[in-house]
Amino acid sequence: MSKRYDIAIIGSGPAGLSAAINAKIRNKDAIIFGNKELSYKLSKAPKINNYLGFFDITGSQLKKAFKNHIEAMDINITEEKVNAVYAMGDYFAIMVNEKSYESKAIVIATGMEHSKPIRGEEEFLGRGVGYCATCDAPLYKGKVVTVIGYNKEAEEDANFVSELASKVYYIPMYRDKYGLNKSIEVVEDKPMEILGENLVNKLVLKNKEINTDGVFVLKDSVSPEQLVPGLEMEEGHIKVDKNMKTSIEGCFAAGDCTGKPYQYIKSAGEGQVAALNAVSYLNSKK
Amino acid sequence: MSKRYDIAIIGSGPAGLSAAINAKIRNKDAIIFGNKELSYKLSKAPKINNYLGFFDITGSQLKKAFKNHIEAMDINITEEKVNAVYAMGDYFAIMVNEKSYESKAIVIATGMEHSKPIRGEEEFLGRGVGYCATCDAPLYKGKVVTVIGYNKEAEEDANFVSELASKVYYIPMYRDKYGLNKSIEVVEDKPMEILGENLVNKLVLKNKEINTDGVFVLKDSVSPEQLVPGLEMEEGHIKVDKNMKTSIEGCFAAGDCTGKPYQYIKSAGEGQVAALNAVSYLNSKK
Repeated sequence: MSKRYDIAIIGSGPAGLSAAINAKIRNKDAIIFGNKELSYKLSKAPKINNYLGFFDITGSQLKKAFKNHIEAMDINITEEKVNAVYAMGDYFAIMVNEKSYESKAIVIATGMEHSKPIRGEEEFLGRGVGYCATCDAPLYKGKVVTVIGYNKEAEEDANFVSELASKVYYIPMYRDKYGLNKSIEVVEDKPMEILGENLVNKLVLKNKEINTDGVFVLKDSVSPEQLVPGLEMEEGHIKVDKNMKTSIEGCFAAGDCTGKPYQYIKSAGEGQVAALNAVSYLNSKK
Repeated sequence: MSKRYDIAIIGSGPAGLSAAINAKIRNKDAIIFGNKELSYKLSKAPKINNYLGFFDITGSQLKKAFKNHIEAMDINITEEKVNAVYAMGDYFAIMVNEKSYESKAIVIATGMEHSKPIRGEEEFLGRGVGYCATCDAPLYKGKVVTVIGYNKEAEEDANFVSELASKVYYIPMYRDKYGLNKSIEVVEDKPMEILGENLVNKLVLKNKEINTDGVFVLKDSVSPEQLVPGLEMEEGHIKVDKNMKTSIEGCFAAGDCTGKPYQYIKSAGEGQVAALNAVSYLNSKK
């Protein structure tokens, strides 16, 4: 039988980290899924004045303070991308690429994907546009595929697709070194519109056009209702009560994914509330 | 005509301070009523680990960080005791001892007042007396702790403490069934006085005395409906929605007075949300 954690926290922004330190203080066995770099958005914030206790700091300095905090408490981040969470009754099954984890309670702290959909993205979803390259790649055997990658993990997916497709274009939405197979053509340009007849046949970029049979848009996070089937939403956010409880028993949420304002200390406060209520939930089940 | 502020913030704990910095960043003319010492309770907290970004600091250090923050932003605290707040339709009248102030919006951040203290409680606060068992429990590893619980939630805290302490006495200030760990000794008696030398060493009850290294007083008392007549309450706390709006238009609330958990970063996050929604409210009235 696989190990069952007390609490699984999904997301390593301020909400997830705050949940993690509170779970730890309450002696719960928690696992936190995210990125060791914590939050890309945070690290890029030029100046933050509204996180009480820190005046006039950069996002990267605040990130460093968060990192020091969790490291001092021996909290490690598990760098796996969670594809789905299933409520199994008395526990949750957390699906990552080739395995799964189990936990008794969940805290969703996945933030908000701020990238607006590309024109045509929603229209052609399922007809040439996809969000899971490893799931849909077989459909594009011998065809031309374009991968729009919002993070470095997308490179791995592009590499996988390139083993089947006849040609892969990679459009990075970030600045970094790319770890891509030689056969992949990197195009540093801005996606404007996805075009097609019945199926996708073209991606229009700011400076050029690409003829393509498929477009994978690989964003940081999937929407919460895709992540946790059955989760009740409210105006684009996870519906929560004051205790950060969602519509699913044992499932809590915190941070941007639960609503505006999108602010760090609001998220950190909610992460704390979510974790402490998850602890109460666990204690009530004993 | 007396000056009319944009926002009056009542309380100088983490919720009030966070509201103040957010109002200032949004260019609103705010007045904050409280104590230049900010929060008595905060300054006495021996150790705080659950305010994301600060690891292993004392309450007085965290208070210093808050003080530096507001001073750097030229935020001054008005040291007056607010006796009542009246909703006058399009503004609020804030009654202090011998005069009054006016504001277009209000943020109530008055915390939870601890009504009548036990003799010795204030004297030994921070020297064996504490209000947050989950915060301070690690200090009592292997020691004898007494928990005076005014509500059922205190039982959970007592259970938590019992995992670390060598012995826990629980003094219930209510009648109910107790969901306490077996190791905890329930003493149904009335606390009279906390005694000690430099640190607490004894709790005097009506019928007996307990030798103890620490006393947690877990109260749940007094409500702000006296402060703001007409304010709707819910289970002893100000009723607020997700935007920290109260039942009175233009009146927002944040922090302990809106509900549990009583924690600093939860309060700071709520103070931010309250202030930003007060700003939206003001802008909508223009």
